[in-house]
Amino acid sequence: MSSQLRLAVDAMGGDLGPRSVVPACVRFLQRFPEAELKLFGPRDLLTRLLEEQHKPSLSRRLQVVGCDQVITQQCNPIQAVRRKRDSSMGRALQALADGEVQAVVSSGNTGALLALSRSILGTIDGVRRPALGKSLPTERGSCFLLDLGANIDCSAEDLLQFARMGIEAQRVHANKCELQVALLNIGAEAHKGTEEIRRAAELFEADPGIHYAGFVEGHDIFTGCVDVVVCDGLLGNVAMKSAEGVIRLMGQKAFTIEKKTPFKRFFGQLAIKLLRKWRTQVEPARYNGASFLGVKGNVIKSHGGASSEAFYRAMITAKECADADLAGRVGRAMSEMHGPVPHQ
Amino acid sequence: MSSQLRLAVDAMGGDLGPRSVVPACVRFLQRFPEAELKLFGPRDLLTRLLEEQHKPSLSRRLQVVGCDQVITQQCNPIQAVRRKRDSSMGRALQALADGEVQAVVSSGNTGALLALSRSILGTIDGVRRPALGKSLPTERGSCFLLDLGANIDCSAEDLLQFARMGIEAQRVHANKCELQVALLNIGAEAHKGTEEIRRAAELFEADPGIHYAGFVEGHDIFTGCVDVVVCDGLLGNVAMKSAEGVIRLMGQKAFTIEKKTPFKRFFGQLAIKLLRKWRTQVEPARYNGASFLGVKGNVIKSHGGASSEAFYRAMITAKECADADLAGRVGRAMSEMHGPVPHQ
Repeated sequence: MSSQLRLAVDAMGGDLGPRSVVPACVRFLQRFPEAELKLFGPRDLLTRLLEEQHKPSLSRRLQVVGCDQVITQQCNPIQAVRRKRDSSMGRALQALADGEVQAVVSSGNTGALLALSRSILGTIDGVRRPALGKSLPTERGSCFLLDLGANIDCSAEDLLQFARMGIEAQRVHANKCELQVALLNIGAEAHKGTEEIRRAAELFEADPGIHYAGFVEGHDIFTGCVDVVVCDGLLGNVAMKSAEGVIRLMGQKAFTIEKKTPFKRFFGQLAIKLLRKWRTQVEPARYNGASFLGVKGNVIKSHGGASSEAFYRAMITAKECADADLAGRVGRAMSEMHGPVPHQ
Repeated sequence: MSSQLRLAVDAMGGDLGPRSVVPACVRFLQRFPEAELKLFGPRDLLTRLLEEQHKPSLSRRLQVVGCDQVITQQCNPIQAVRRKRDSSMGRALQALADGEVQAVVSSGNTGALLALSRSILGTIDGVRRPALGKSLPTERGSCFLLDLGANIDCSAEDLLQFARMGIEAQRVHANKCELQVALLNIGAEAHKGTEEIRRAAELFEADPGIHYAGFVEGHDIFTGCVDVVVCDGLLGNVAMKSAEGVIRLMGQKAFTIEKKTPFKRFFGQLAIKLLRKWRTQVEPARYNGASFLGVKGNVIKSHGGASSEAFYRAMITAKECADADLAGRVGRAMSEMHGPVPHQ
């Protein structure tokens, strides 16, 4: 392999597994003629699914790496590290560790992916806890939200590191000099929130590398008033999933009404077509692909319920992170930017 | 006053103040001929706004109670309790304490409303901490989410009490025998979340009055898979506001695209009309009115950014709570239902 972009793809994660992954890979190779892919999973199954796509011309740039071990949704992270290094996920991460590829994409078990990433790739020097973050749509562009669930209890010092890593990640998506950083809280006033959030505010305020914009509330993630929103993994997970839930609800409500009004059925169909188009602008599929920040390599987690379209979007995110050398940038930022992070 | 339904309305809260409250009151009185309202705020201002509505026939059922003191958004809860009992908010709560009305509606400062409610009405015997909760739209009906921000740090015992109060509140909205109760968490698996959430799960499981459905994630609030979702105030606030943020974003994105595609402008207009209709099904205005549970009286908090339509919806929520004697039901449930709540 000698081309510029090489990605490792774990074919065996998510609700649809290779049935969403394989068509996404074919589309990706068609879109990016310089890309090469390594696809990890059971060889026979993947070869058959690839043949169904009828694109033999792409086979030169798509290498199937056969591995029969699979990590299920039920597998716990410790088991994954101890016994599942030869799984499609483990082998894909090993390819990244060995420098064969520039990024890994998986829609598998999040906990296992995090644990295996830490174990196989290692944590960047100085990083206390890696975090999961994602760029979300706003009224004016995008906003990077982290942590999305890698860490439940976070100290103010952890949140400060998340801010530093989040700034680097958002630079991949937003072409802006001064990225405004905020802490997710229950209100904008300084006395609001938990002690850790208030203490984090003091650390953010004192850090010369952070343009700190204060506390924001849940709705502010989507207004575009700030570029990076920092919180612990429980809060970030609930914020992102609540937003996703309401988008799904709106789609569902739309169909219900359309069926009920026969008079408007014709225009309703056209309207629904437009509505779908609008929805793709904000729906999870379009903004799919969370980055695992703080490990030595670009690891992209696709949504577990990802369609082929959504998995393709996660691959685009992986390409952007690889092109920007995100893991390298995070490493340099953590070691050089503003001196060591204060210890607790 | 001798009619069946009497509400006290604080005219001075929210971004629009009496300009959204007064038209909502007029509409409410027209819709419910048996209702009577007490409207608290500066007499001259309210009288003038009422005259602009040109409904002198309603004046018999709408009593303006003049009070010039106003609680601003900046006022802190302790100041409110010490110095602002004669404010429109304080006087409205006093009318409820004195039995003159069956519920209070306010779109004012949430912290002050909670503190004044506890001080003027008192807390129901056995309730450790009152909570703020709200019925939200789902694919199959509604789901009651609490706490929405009255309490930041909550113990497992607090969450158990929230569950008991939430069940009573959701009974007002849903006509169902067995209400399914869940805990908001980062995942459905038993080992997920903080220690307090896992400990709360044990208490819920052991409580014969709770049909415990396990952990749910943010998106499950909107699927209708459960009827009551319990969490601490920080998590609930972020869940609700993130969902509201994304709804606003969808509306905004729709307009942006419509302007960009002149060819589809005609259908775009129709689509936007339908989209607006769909949005009202899920938007905050329609589900406006959070109940403050655990105090001796029905106190309804309207959204601070409430339009007249939204404030009217909060008044409907107040009517439903008054009709169902929600505060009384919560009181009976807390004292009788399943014995005393375990102490920490």
